[in-house]
Amino acid sequence: MPDTANTDFKITTGPISGSKKVYVRSENDPSVRVPMREIHLHPTANEVPVRVYDTSGPYTDPTAEIDIYKGLPELRKEWILARGDVEEYEGRDMKPEDNGNVEDKYLAPEFPVKKRPLKAKEGMNVTQMHYARKGIVTPEMEFVAVRENLGRKIQAEKLERSGESFGAEIPDYITGEFVRSEIARGRAVLVNNVNHPESEPQIIGRNFLVKINANIGNSAVSSSIAEEVDKMVWATRWGADTVMDLSTGRNIHNTREWIIRNSPVPIGTVPIYQALEKVDGIAEDLTWEIYRDTLIEQCEQGVDYFTIHAGVRLPFIHLTAKRVTGIVSRGGSIMAKWCLAHHKESFLYTHFEDICKILKQYDVAFSLGDGLRPGSIADANDEAQFAELRTLGELTKIAWEHDVQVFIEGPGHVPMHKIKENMEEQLKHCHEAPFYTLGPLTTDIAPGYDHITSAIGAAQIGWYGTAMLCYVTPKEHLGLPDRDDVKEGVITYKLAAHAADLAKGHPASQIRDDALSRARFEFRWEDQFNLSLDPDRARDFHDQTLPKEAHKVAHFCSMCGPKFCSMKITQDVRDYAAKKEEAETGMKQMSEEFAKRGADLYLPADEVEAAE
Amino acid sequence: MPDTANTDFKITTGPISGSKKVYVRSENDPSVRVPMREIHLHPTANEVPVRVYDTSGPYTDPTAEIDIYKGLPELRKEWILARGDVEEYEGRDMKPEDNGNVEDKYLAPEFPVKKRPLKAKEGMNVTQMHYARKGIVTPEMEFVAVRENLGRKIQAEKLERSGESFGAEIPDYITGEFVRSEIARGRAVLVNNVNHPESEPQIIGRNFLVKINANIGNSAVSSSIAEEVDKMVWATRWGADTVMDLSTGRNIHNTREWIIRNSPVPIGTVPIYQALEKVDGIAEDLTWEIYRDTLIEQCEQGVDYFTIHAGVRLPFIHLTAKRVTGIVSRGGSIMAKWCLAHHKESFLYTHFEDICKILKQYDVAFSLGDGLRPGSIADANDEAQFAELRTLGELTKIAWEHDVQVFIEGPGHVPMHKIKENMEEQLKHCHEAPFYTLGPLTTDIAPGYDHITSAIGAAQIGWYGTAMLCYVTPKEHLGLPDRDDVKEGVITYKLAAHAADLAKGHPASQIRDDALSRARFEFRWEDQFNLSLDPDRARDFHDQTLPKEAHKVAHFCSMCGPKFCSMKITQDVRDYAAKKEEAETGMKQMSEEFAKRGADLYLPADEVEAAE
Repeated sequence: MPDTANTDFKITTGPISGSKKVYVRSENDPSVRVPMREIHLHPTANEVPVRVYDTSGPYTDPTAEIDIYKGLPELRKEWILARGDVEEYEGRDMKPEDNGNVEDKYLAPEFPVKKRPLKAKEGMNVTQMHYARKGIVTPEMEFVAVRENLGRKIQAEKLERSGESFGAEIPDYITGEFVRSEIARGRAVLVNNVNHPESEPQIIGRNFLVKINANIGNSAVSSSIAEEVDKMVWATRWGADTVMDLSTGRNIHNTREWIIRNSPVPIGTVPIYQALEKVDGIAEDLTWEIYRDTLIEQCEQGVDYFTIHAGVRLPFIHLTAKRVTGIVSRGGSIMAKWCLAHHKESFLYTHFEDICKILKQYDVAFSLGDGLRPGSIADANDEAQFAELRTLGELTKIAWEHDVQVFIEGPGHVPMHKIKENMEEQLKHCHEAPFYTLGPLTTDIAPGYDHITSAIGAAQIGWYGTAMLCYVTPKEHLGLPDRDDVKEGVITYKLAAHAADLAKGHPASQIRDDALSRARFEFRWEDQFNLSLDPDRARDFHDQTLPKEAHKVAHFCSMCGPKFCSMKITQDVRDYAAKKEEAETGMKQMSEEFAKRGADLYLPADEVEAAE
Repeated sequence: MPDTANTDFKITTGPISGSKKVYVRSENDPSVRVPMREIHLHPTANEVPVRVYDTSGPYTDPTAEIDIYKGLPELRKEWILARGDVEEYEGRDMKPEDNGNVEDKYLAPEFPVKKRPLKAKEGMNVTQMHYARKGIVTPEMEFVAVRENLGRKIQAEKLERSGESFGAEIPDYITGEFVRSEIARGRAVLVNNVNHPESEPQIIGRNFLVKINANIGNSAVSSSIAEEVDKMVWATRWGADTVMDLSTGRNIHNTREWIIRNSPVPIGTVPIYQALEKVDGIAEDLTWEIYRDTLIEQCEQGVDYFTIHAGVRLPFIHLTAKRVTGIVSRGGSIMAKWCLAHHKESFLYTHFEDICKILKQYDVAFSLGDGLRPGSIADANDEAQFAELRTLGELTKIAWEHDVQVFIEGPGHVPMHKIKENMEEQLKHCHEAPFYTLGPLTTDIAPGYDHITSAIGAAQIGWYGTAMLCYVTPKEHLGLPDRDDVKEGVITYKLAAHAADLAKGHPASQIRDDALSRARFEFRWEDQFNLSLDPDRARDFHDQTLPKEAHKVAHFCSMCGPKFCSMKITQDVRDYAAKKEEAETGMKQMSEEFAKRGADLYLPADEVEAAE
């Protein structure tokens, strides 16, 4: 057993209130078994259970055996090996600098299980994009297709589509072939490093459900491995589709290993953060060799996507000089500092093809970073930002020549009237590669509430076509998010993403709203709680005013009290409408009868009685 | 002294952190002295203080003497009397039914100070709209003009305007004459009952700052007078522009009196709630006479605007029968029930002109209620909703014939792609009368987070032209908001309204964002906290990670730590850019020199040296 001083894990397991984990098997590939969360409704509802997207992995399956010291089962291992294009190898030796040269009691324990990494055999390319372009529908793609449909066939009769899609083309049903074609043309990304077989395939693209990312990670001033693993499990419990480990302190390597081995969702990182730690925080001491070594280290561990700020080019840096908030991206400023110190073009830009050659051996995706994103309303949509964006578009084409998957990061701080331009410029210059934005925050004046300020922007840009929304927590600009902040951020972004799905006209998205609204209308309180994004909070808030168990079956609520209830009146309205319809039907029959008899207003006397 | 059992007031007074109350005197009318909040910045900022809109009244003025048992000073009394068109009169006698027939210890204490009410002298009309149409700029209008400018003249050089206004026409500076003209044409409303002289004039209209309303009020199952007065003071402290007292329990009359006498902002109510209490909760027992008496009761107390669901007409009721959530408006369902029970047109509709005749004697504004608003995504923008909206437009014209001020209430639950249609239909059918919306909520699935779900919709509809946003608290659909919920709702809506102001291109709105962003960039932590919408939370969140006092002057934060900071790098960038500019200026001089010499690429040999 490892030293547990730093790894006293207290993670949350078990189903979310009112729901259970189900597995839906693909009709096309019996090896594909997709987890979903099924929310059961009260028998009086007389409705099928509502299936919702489930990012929580085995942690919410009571039959699963969870052991943080062993990691999750390797769900995808067989699929990866069956393709015959990867091989195990010795891998890079761990170096003291990987953990920031910490020693003795400061060194966090290594993950107990050691595995030899996989990589592509000589000359092979193991990216999902590569398979897609060869016309192969992989089990991962089939998995994604089943997952995205959310069992919507059961609800087929309810598929009324409305919405303004701004050019997105979401089909009624997702097939493996559709997933393949979207990946092939670069419009969607299926991130799954061959060294992270524990992760469940998911897809990021404009023609799929809008995804969200949660950031976690230690910093030089705070937090431990146990806390970070807990945040990862907690974030995925509430709906994080991917998690970024943005650790910047010591023990980066070991922290990441614990996270990846236990993560059911893809993990992203910003490798320059670790590279900087390896040169003791001095940006100008960074070299391509150190960076390259860090990439390989992380590819071998199983990181699924890398934020790489290769668009922060020397000629763009002076464009930020007159900004109110200069360069606010950490990675962007590291690279800017390096470029200025050496008066040289960024090594991320000059070595971009070398990076592609590494990434395609593991199927790690590019998240092309927006190092020059605006950090304030004043700096939104300026030339620095858009010059970088156009460069990211050029780099996308180079990555695609290597069949390496790409998505593009976006801002930041943007007032509402400038959000749409961001999406339009991104679509235009980045060839429809998926957009992945941080917010954007629509004002600068609400620290402590920036999850909300940014959800306003996130919902809009998600509607316009952004494929993944990076959450912002209430601690943004103020401190590192704790467990509560992580949940607040995740739920806030789940609702923003859902608002976007609804507005885009996603065919399955309104099923849950309608089920919840019916429950609300019929005073099925437990159903209302369970269908909500956060049943625990909904129940707790209800109980603060009306704590008694009996009130959860009461046909009233604390807003109006028992004596009067607007919901109750609707039955009267329905009775009335039924009568009215009956009356109108009667009149309609009469007038049809009349019409049949022709336009004669005066009937022959002998027919008057018969007509009555 | 009254019985204080139920009135043990614990309200919050004193300035908001880092700021002080200032009073700006009008240049045109020395009797007009407008309160603002001035946020002082650290001397190193070398910036003028930032003035922000201040709804908190005397409570944040340390020199003011606050006595809840006496009420606030009568700021407007002299202006009202100086016009010579009102007179004191005996007023209606209070009846036991006004407080729901409660007795003895259940009866809440009356407000200790009794005043004789004012109303218009025979044949007079005392509405601000009436004065506006006669070309009179009242002190109230002048007050509003100074208030809306937020001292922006001081910052004149910073007035760069961008934004998409969707037809709003906000001038660079607001004058009393502009306020008058907007009120005269019905595009803005200045609500100030002559019997609520304690309130500070403010304006609701598309060409002014977006306003927010906070709902408070007891219900049959919860809360006391002291709690409701506290919520009112608390809500206005954080920025509520108006407060609606939606009490539905007992002691409605007395509760309201304590609130109005102590409120620096206009108070709105839904009179049908109290009328229903008077008939013991039985909707079909309502009569025009009982309702009329309730209106007069509330006009005399000083309620500034009434939600009146006069658009819930008999012929529209059956349109709601097939809805997922029927009629969710409490007032709407009361009237629907009445109409069905009697199979008669609503008395609010048939007596609309009678209501106008009452309201113009006190200057109470109509908030024409949307009794048929959608209560779920499924019901948004349906025929029931829009049939009612068109009726509200007809009623607006009738009210305007009496010079009675009007605004129009809007939904509700609306997915993002259907929000804009709401604004467009409202502008079209309601003749630009100000729109006042509840959210709208953009999904149904987030009880516990509905302040956020609705802020997404509120920011958008505010941008499109809605003049006032009715807050939604985290307790929406679940229970009555407590003090914390009230603050969460108010701050959330302040940021949504601000996001809308920015996007509309309001000329003064970005001043605060820019000041905060500069403070952020320069690590002026205290300035950053104080410029935020909630300094207390911002400071608290910061201290959770870095509690030491020293960290508040530290040039780093918990996100990156002391060793590396993206903000620090910008100084390097600026130095570099300065050098680059210098170099470019050199080159530019060279090329200008060259241009002067004409297009001759080959200079005569004797000039080559001179050109170097």
